[in-house]
Amino acid sequence: MVDHFGFDVNLTFKQRYLIADQYWKNDNGAVLFYTGNEGDITWFCKNTGFMWDVAEELKAMLVFAEHRYYGESLPFGNLSFSDSKHLNYLTSEQALADFAVLIEYLKKTIPGAKNSPVIAIGGSYGGMLAAWFRMKYPHIVIGALAASAPIWQFTDLVSCGKFFEIVTNDFKKSGSECSETIQSSWKAIDRLTSTGEGLQWISEVFHLCNPLRSQTDAIMLKSWLAETWVNLAMVDYPYSSDFLMPLPAWPIKEVCKYLKDPSASDKILVQNIFQAVNIYYNYSGEASCLNTSQTATSNLGIQGWNYQACTEMVMPICTTGISDMFEPQAWDFAAYSDQCFQEWGVRPRPSWIPTVFGGKNISSHSNIIFSNGALDPWYAGGVNENITDTLVSIVIPDGAHHLDLRARNADDPESVLLARTMEVDYMKKWITQFQGHR
Amino acid sequence: MVDHFGFDVNLTFKQRYLIADQYWKNDNGAVLFYTGNEGDITWFCKNTGFMWDVAEELKAMLVFAEHRYYGESLPFGNLSFSDSKHLNYLTSEQALADFAVLIEYLKKTIPGAKNSPVIAIGGSYGGMLAAWFRMKYPHIVIGALAASAPIWQFTDLVSCGKFFEIVTNDFKKSGSECSETIQSSWKAIDRLTSTGEGLQWISEVFHLCNPLRSQTDAIMLKSWLAETWVNLAMVDYPYSSDFLMPLPAWPIKEVCKYLKDPSASDKILVQNIFQAVNIYYNYSGEASCLNTSQTATSNLGIQGWNYQACTEMVMPICTTGISDMFEPQAWDFAAYSDQCFQEWGVRPRPSWIPTVFGGKNISSHSNIIFSNGALDPWYAGGVNENITDTLVSIVIPDGAHHLDLRARNADDPESVLLARTMEVDYMKKWITQFQGHR
Repeated sequence: MVDHFGFDVNLTFKQRYLIADQYWKNDNGAVLFYTGNEGDITWFCKNTGFMWDVAEELKAMLVFAEHRYYGESLPFGNLSFSDSKHLNYLTSEQALADFAVLIEYLKKTIPGAKNSPVIAIGGSYGGMLAAWFRMKYPHIVIGALAASAPIWQFTDLVSCGKFFEIVTNDFKKSGSECSETIQSSWKAIDRLTSTGEGLQWISEVFHLCNPLRSQTDAIMLKSWLAETWVNLAMVDYPYSSDFLMPLPAWPIKEVCKYLKDPSASDKILVQNIFQAVNIYYNYSGEASCLNTSQTATSNLGIQGWNYQACTEMVMPICTTGISDMFEPQAWDFAAYSDQCFQEWGVRPRPSWIPTVFGGKNISSHSNIIFSNGALDPWYAGGVNENITDTLVSIVIPDGAHHLDLRARNADDPESVLLARTMEVDYMKKWITQFQGHR
Repeated sequence: MVDHFGFDVNLTFKQRYLIADQYWKNDNGAVLFYTGNEGDITWFCKNTGFMWDVAEELKAMLVFAEHRYYGESLPFGNLSFSDSKHLNYLTSEQALADFAVLIEYLKKTIPGAKNSPVIAIGGSYGGMLAAWFRMKYPHIVIGALAASAPIWQFTDLVSCGKFFEIVTNDFKKSGSECSETIQSSWKAIDRLTSTGEGLQWISEVFHLCNPLRSQTDAIMLKSWLAETWVNLAMVDYPYSSDFLMPLPAWPIKEVCKYLKDPSASDKILVQNIFQAVNIYYNYSGEASCLNTSQTATSNLGIQGWNYQACTEMVMPICTTGISDMFEPQAWDFAAYSDQCFQEWGVRPRPSWIPTVFGGKNISSHSNIIFSNGALDPWYAGGVNENITDTLVSIVIPDGAHHLDLRARNADDPESVLLARTMEVDYMKKWITQFQGHR
């Protein structure tokens, strides 16, 4: 159903899902159900090697369900993003209901699946969905692995400054003077972009596809840089990888090799910044110019996510310029709301997610693993302490954004191996409990 | 919000609620929150004396929240029922979200209420809402008393025939030959209404405000009678009361005094049936004629409930004519759905309620009391065995529809006194637990 929560619009749509049953034993095997997030499900499938790695051990069927309004699961085809009317069914509650209905359908139609225990797995927003799915549909999933799920990055549940502090620390740890150099760069850019000549010079240095033409463009450049540093923090993986972008192992270390001199002249400093971001945007060496409107893989659905961020998924984030290496920026909800209204014709409801999913008061739920990498900025909004015996936290000190969900790798740090072992142990325990109750 | 689950319609509406704080102690007193069902909240407030009776003992604040689309809580005023577009927000999920938002608002605005434990209480559909509220919003209510809540009267979770078997048993127990007389009456009515003269005669005997004119009208008469017997079973209370109608104590016994001869002639039999239903419709003696389109108090919102029954609240009910005293009628979903489409322009989704609220698979929840009276036809769809230590059932053998929620009465049977004591004990336990965790 396009609308699970109303009956006036009685339309259905095609939801894409991927399924792998080669490891599944239908006598007591589980179903690992990936609660798809804001992107093409085939891409999440490829980047969630953990599920493939544990499938045999858990005799598990794998299902990857695409989130409505992403990939090929567009409720209104090309019109899905045309206006707020067509976007009205893009919410986390509708997505969870899709998952519930899909699982009931699979259980009914796949011979032998009727009594299979189902475990929800997801990362990032998909991790939030996995956790919320267990909270709201415990009759459908026996447990959830919520990897790097910032379920507390809402209203004032956590401090809004923590996110960028983590980014800053990642750079601080990855090279001497690295965060200081970035911190110096903002003013350097300001000075250089104060003239038309400087705007042109910087555009050339950065090989920008669209040269800077104004002060506004210069502000855009800085926010593009800030987003680049954030993304690097998210994907600071211990081996070369291709998640948001193709990158070397420990990419921040590579980046920091160019960021050693915070007191260089403005031009040298900015040239060094270019060398640094060029690792992120052009590690393959194939980019002929850098496009500031794209900061990550196009497998992510930016449009859809922007709409969600303007409705339910309001995550306050701020900088101080003191405890972090960024320009200070307070969280300004009124401005944020106005911008959302301008862009989408809707107003965000920042307190709805805590109201519907419980905020910090979730102890009556059970069987959820919250895993977080300490290098990941989204760690800030995550659950990083055990809440009860069955609502547990696993912190991976050397992990970036849901490293635990990635495929096994020879360069995996010990901490992620341990995390994955614990995760599998919990899942086995849930499965055993479930089978004991039947 | 009119629509908690979408952002395109950004409207709000005024929800009515009643509040009584004279017994409330804001140091450790609870809030008893009545999850309003399909009617005027002042009427539920008056008919839920239990909450008033226990308020002092629990040092409790009482809140009675009106359900959207009932009483004065009309999202679109007079237009609320004008079409399926305006009715689109009449669902149990929206109602639960209203309750959640209201409680958060009360906790924020009433001095001293911030940390008060809240317990949901409801009867009938309101009892379902109380149970579902605890299931979906355990962070907002610490427990729920779901009185006479037929949460399993959906799809094939229980046998569709049980409901009318209970009605039949109530009549069987209340007078010799009583159910047999009703059973005989259907054919007698058929025979009499086969002629125009007979239709007129019956109309006069029943003092019908609108005389019968056709065979279709005769069918309506029979379904009106069937509904009357059902309603009597629901309100078969041990003392004179005025819930659906003003009635004497144990009204079925009174009714059965006229129903002792199943083999009387058709005309005598029908005259006796009239005497019987006249107790239900005209105990006060004030009715000048009987109106077959009204079978209970106008405090119930028939329109709204019909719409809900045509969307989410699809409760299969059937008769066999063998295990019950009614004419046999199978559950015909296709016909039901067509009728709904004709009336409201919507199609029911019968499996949605079990999908979203768990059907029989609810054991991972906690702190819900399911109380049911064994005389109540809705007992059929209720939870009548303990599911876990904290999902408990209380059966009241001598109770009709949520007798336990009614005010204390000198003629209360022992079983309802015991039920209420247990209910209060459970609530105290939840409150103590809650305060221990803070």
